[in-house]
Amino acid sequence: MPARSRLIEMNMHMERALELAQRATGLSDPNPRVGCLLVGADGTVLGQGHTQMAGGPHAEVMALRDARERGNAVQGATAYVTLEPCSHQGRTGPCCDALIAAGIQRVVATQTDPNPLVSGQGFARLRAAGLAVELLPADHPQAIASRELNIGFFSRMVRKTPWVRLKIAASLDGKTALPNGASQWITSAEARTDGHAWRARASAVLTGIGTVLQDRPRLDVRLVETSRQPHLVVVDSALQTPLDSPVFLPGRTLLIYAAQEDEAKAAALTAQGATVIYLPGRAADGRPTGKVDLAALLRDLGQREINELHVEAGHKLNGSLVREGLVDEFLVYLAPKLLGQGADMAHFGPLTELSQALNLRFLSSTLVGPDMRLLARVTGRDDF
Amino acid sequence: MPARSRLIEMNMHMERALELAQRATGLSDPNPRVGCLLVGADGTVLGQGHTQMAGGPHAEVMALRDARERGNAVQGATAYVTLEPCSHQGRTGPCCDALIAAGIQRVVATQTDPNPLVSGQGFARLRAAGLAVELLPADHPQAIASRELNIGFFSRMVRKTPWVRLKIAASLDGKTALPNGASQWITSAEARTDGHAWRARASAVLTGIGTVLQDRPRLDVRLVETSRQPHLVVVDSALQTPLDSPVFLPGRTLLIYAAQEDEAKAAALTAQGATVIYLPGRAADGRPTGKVDLAALLRDLGQREINELHVEAGHKLNGSLVREGLVDEFLVYLAPKLLGQGADMAHFGPLTELSQALNLRFLSSTLVGPDMRLLARVTGRDDF
Repeated sequence: MPARSRLIEMNMHMERALELAQRATGLSDPNPRVGCLLVGADGTVLGQGHTQMAGGPHAEVMALRDARERGNAVQGATAYVTLEPCSHQGRTGPCCDALIAAGIQRVVATQTDPNPLVSGQGFARLRAAGLAVELLPADHPQAIASRELNIGFFSRMVRKTPWVRLKIAASLDGKTALPNGASQWITSAEARTDGHAWRARASAVLTGIGTVLQDRPRLDVRLVETSRQPHLVVVDSALQTPLDSPVFLPGRTLLIYAAQEDEAKAAALTAQGATVIYLPGRAADGRPTGKVDLAALLRDLGQREINELHVEAGHKLNGSLVREGLVDEFLVYLAPKLLGQGADMAHFGPLTELSQALNLRFLSSTLVGPDMRLLARVTGRDDF
Repeated sequence: MPARSRLIEMNMHMERALELAQRATGLSDPNPRVGCLLVGADGTVLGQGHTQMAGGPHAEVMALRDARERGNAVQGATAYVTLEPCSHQGRTGPCCDALIAAGIQRVVATQTDPNPLVSGQGFARLRAAGLAVELLPADHPQAIASRELNIGFFSRMVRKTPWVRLKIAASLDGKTALPNGASQWITSAEARTDGHAWRARASAVLTGIGTVLQDRPRLDVRLVETSRQPHLVVVDSALQTPLDSPVFLPGRTLLIYAAQEDEAKAAALTAQGATVIYLPGRAADGRPTGKVDLAALLRDLGQREINELHVEAGHKLNGSLVREGLVDEFLVYLAPKLLGQGADMAHFGPLTELSQALNLRFLSSTLVGPDMRLLARVTGRDDF
């Protein structure tokens, strides 16, 4: 068992690796957010790095490159990495081979690769080459932190669907719009900026045709810096997205999911740059519902390498997602005001017993400007 | 200007006096919650005390008594008190005279007496007797803490009405009951216990006849210890409170406010121990509304020496209180669940513009068991 001071040192180095991993947020998609710190036998930091844009180097390669640029020899060093180094040839060479070739002696990692097909292969390859491998226990705070940072990647790897985070802006009494539809703005400028930071970390933003028609939103990331725009996904069963809608943005991927085929409309939307996908829902008796099959939509987004899906929709689509059990967590901004009547957060039910409620667990409460941001996770949704 | 170390010492002593003041919560009503610490020239604590039950000694007298019992001489000592010592002969003798007679040399206080008729007279009397008096600035954290602890007393003294705190238990999406009325229990046992602690600090609990009939609640303090039960106030326009209702509790004051006179019912309720008060509301054209005049009810409760009024009612009475601008703050327990449809927190409106919202300010968010407790104050309501 390592001495106490060595444990503290390991903890410190891994904390630094996690900070590096966070820098990959909004950058590395669809790859996970990974950080790597190379530390010499005497505890000196020799190099550091984090995953770059898809197709670019992974964290381990960046850290080795950093050490080389700083003139630091890494033979015999320890690599702290926030995820199991990859062993397969993807768009870049396997990180395991790079670590082995550089003479790294020991690898400490927070998590195994969540992909069940390759999980553990990286560690095995390292061990076969004579490296010592230490994996933190699954309940270690740093193991949890790494998984939380990559909850979307883990979800896509294990469940084959994105992590679905539903964002809501409401008054304290749960109203998202007045009865006449007025909703801009219930929450503060600070909350809206914070909301853009959450958009930025998502692979895609999802909305419904109701919001597209009524609010004419762009749903891009404007209020915070980002190295790329998340995709926009529109649930538009009858292909009603106007050709002059602000959802068409140069350089941004726009996915429109429909249920009712209309070749002319689809052609026009495609000519504008959208990708139109038909996923008609069917009722239990096999008859078409006229609505998009939302579960199939999530599977399709998983295949399109969407990790985190950020939903900003109206109470109808929110209600459908809740009713079908597709939401993983809620990001709720409550403005310090009462509106009395209006649109609810998510329209579903009516329930007849309290035990039928959608059960959540509060993860955090944070004052954002004058508003209260609550993060709440659906019970059992992160058991994968 | 006092030296830094002396300021720190003063701060520490006043903090202790505030802790003592808190012990008077749920005990001293209708008197304010006051603490007093007697400190010798060398910084030794000589005696301490807090306000007792109405008719019993005030904090200063308790502290002098404590010093005497401990054999400590208090000549030349400093008294730290969380409110201006009283100068009038109430149920007990004036505290100023007791401090003067004991030879106290200096008095440090957080607040002047909020009663505009006597405010400053205590300090004047002390100064006339040769004592040094220091009053903390109004924006000093300890001055604010003392006022907050006595917000109900300050409200009654200045506005002549109680501080109205409206308690709500709801789901995250703002539902206080399912469409079929089911509401027991949306929030957790921990939140209900916490709610009893808030009941206990109030002078009175207020509810509506709808809640009395539907839930048959006792609305007393059971889940936490208390030295007395707050009064219960029922808004019961047509005198529908059943004679076998659990609201009749031995030893608890029950005030029933009505709008429609009914001698027989009133006599029966009175025979059961209730006090029936007619306060019929009138519309702008002078015609009776058939409802209780809620603003007049608050004035009447002020005359009955109610400091803090804890409201636990349904969405209709909550809505009436909001509509009439009578609520000072909201104590909201949000359960981590979505219910989709059902009763709202407070039914008012419909509003047509967001600027018509009832504006609040979040004071705190606290996890109570699995639930989130939010305290939010109506903007401008504490400007008195």
